[in-house]
Amino acid sequence: MKTIELRSPYLIFVGDAAEDCYAKTGFGLVQWRRELCQGQLSLAGGSVDVGLPPMTLKQAASSGVGSLIIGTAAIGGTIPEGWLDTLVAAADLGIDIVAGVHTRLNNIPRLSRAAERSGARLIDVRVPPAELSVGTGRKRPGRRLLTVGTDCAVGKKYSALALEQALHKAGMKATFRASGQTGIMIAGAGIPIDAVVADFISGAAEALSPDNDPDHWDVIEGQGSIFHPGYCAVSMGLLVGSQPEAFVVCHEAGRTHILGWDNFKLPSVDEVIARTLILGRQTNPAIRCVGVSVNTSALAPEQSESYLADLSARVGLPCVDPLRTGTAKIIDYINQQGMT
Amino acid sequence: MKTIELRSPYLIFVGDAAEDCYAKTGFGLVQWRRELCQGQLSLAGGSVDVGLPPMTLKQAASSGVGSLIIGTAAIGGTIPEGWLDTLVAAADLGIDIVAGVHTRLNNIPRLSRAAERSGARLIDVRVPPAELSVGTGRKRPGRRLLTVGTDCAVGKKYSALALEQALHKAGMKATFRASGQTGIMIAGAGIPIDAVVADFISGAAEALSPDNDPDHWDVIEGQGSIFHPGYCAVSMGLLVGSQPEAFVVCHEAGRTHILGWDNFKLPSVDEVIARTLILGRQTNPAIRCVGVSVNTSALAPEQSESYLADLSARVGLPCVDPLRTGTAKIIDYINQQGMT
Repeated sequence: MKTIELRSPYLIFVGDAAEDCYAKTGFGLVQWRRELCQGQLSLAGGSVDVGLPPMTLKQAASSGVGSLIIGTAAIGGTIPEGWLDTLVAAADLGIDIVAGVHTRLNNIPRLSRAAERSGARLIDVRVPPAELSVGTGRKRPGRRLLTVGTDCAVGKKYSALALEQALHKAGMKATFRASGQTGIMIAGAGIPIDAVVADFISGAAEALSPDNDPDHWDVIEGQGSIFHPGYCAVSMGLLVGSQPEAFVVCHEAGRTHILGWDNFKLPSVDEVIARTLILGRQTNPAIRCVGVSVNTSALAPEQSESYLADLSARVGLPCVDPLRTGTAKIIDYINQQGMT
Repeated sequence: MKTIELRSPYLIFVGDAAEDCYAKTGFGLVQWRRELCQGQLSLAGGSVDVGLPPMTLKQAASSGVGSLIIGTAAIGGTIPEGWLDTLVAAADLGIDIVAGVHTRLNNIPRLSRAAERSGARLIDVRVPPAELSVGTGRKRPGRRLLTVGTDCAVGKKYSALALEQALHKAGMKATFRASGQTGIMIAGAGIPIDAVVADFISGAAEALSPDNDPDHWDVIEGQGSIFHPGYCAVSMGLLVGSQPEAFVVCHEAGRTHILGWDNFKLPSVDEVIARTLILGRQTNPAIRCVGVSVNTSALAPEQSESYLADLSARVGLPCVDPLRTGTAKIIDYINQQGMT
């Protein structure tokens, strides 16, 4: 297996979370893959509602749920003792348990014994698949779009999901390809690229977007930034292995420095475009930028509009805020340019 | 522990190898670290002589040998059954066993039991240390020179070792920093950077060349090539984390395509210089190229001379063949440019 693959439909477990901010993964699943989510399960004391029908484990098992997805984070990134009875019961019913926490599910003896008994799988979306290889650079059929960023946490996953949705709305074939843990839960498949062994980064990126129909778009979730002092190698391998013909730069309006690396000035959108072109040409000489996706939540609505208009005039490309304007302009641009 | 560290002096084990080409590691150790090598040990049928006094395990133990280094490769990259009695006996005497083979030493029960009894360590130089972190980009005191390449297997390790030697000859402080398995055996320390988890590549490079005296040069062994479809991410992280102020491009005269990636034209030396400058400026704006180190073994002596002269005229930098001309010209250039 070259990518992680989850069994749908899902039961979203929100534990005893009392505040929505802890359940971002659960909300993301409902937002982007409502059709795969059968129900939600919370514990005593939990008050988060991700908008799904409440469901017991027995109901889940009898309605064919494939995976219980831990859609909330506990403090410290662990599996709290109080969740265990429920997770063990789910595994005993043959339901896969899917988590993206620090603790390895297989290292919890009660849980691994239950999984062994029933054949349920314990899936850590932070653990890459075992069978990765070195990147070949072989040109693959199908179209590819990668979201890249001026930094971490600027909306690369969100933009990729929004672009996939916009492609579908335009009647085009498209698949979101997840390279990070939350994305993998949403997509039901993927590779946590930052956890792959260095030698296999571009090879993992190749496995993530395999051969496809000539008119099919893979929309690949980017990671980090090519300018990032800590994570640039991940971004580099993902870019070179993805061989995208199109990329979208993601940015957060108002950010001035690399988040958590205060001595490093944020690169400009223009700098990211220029460098991504240089490095991407290595495996795809036809690479081009097709737009910019900006999180303008720090700006008032009129400010946001003028920010996007100014940026668009400067870079000569459609600039959107996926939450405020949607991403259709970028898809229109791709079509106008005859890229399909 | 952030880097692997070996205990010297060494006993070089050449097994039952009958041909020198299998014992490249053993020869490399003797060439570059003769002062750390106490003796050699071969088995019945072995005829390789790396030029050290023959030594039994008992002699090794009584003369204070710290590590038995497996200086030869067996077919398939394993530890042959016929070597085991000797390795177990060495471990029983408290001598560390050091190998860079596919088989993990700890997975050989007889060997791991012997090591447990005596306290000897079993060291796989292909396994990175556990305590790595994300790169910080923090500027570190001390000077740094990185060897980069137009491809894999163009002499990046050899050139770095030759440059370290030339720096010492010029009376300058210098330490070779190993990023690959053979280099680690020679240096007695290092990190196999291609085996590190993606997120930690630049962090590992930072750990590899820590804070040092202002007039001390770390000469860092490069890996892969920034243009390589498979390994570019490793090269990128190593470059950004090393923060070199100086780099030397390594190349093999006559190579036209990336070794094993026949669809990819080899980048020119000029292209590698230009791109390394662009990417390296991210963490060290003062980065510059100080020379080119070419393996001209495919050329006749007079051809080699004119090749190096032409290249030097083109790039405006000293160009050497470390085996034929030595690398002193590069050190002279560094000094002439007032980089020390």
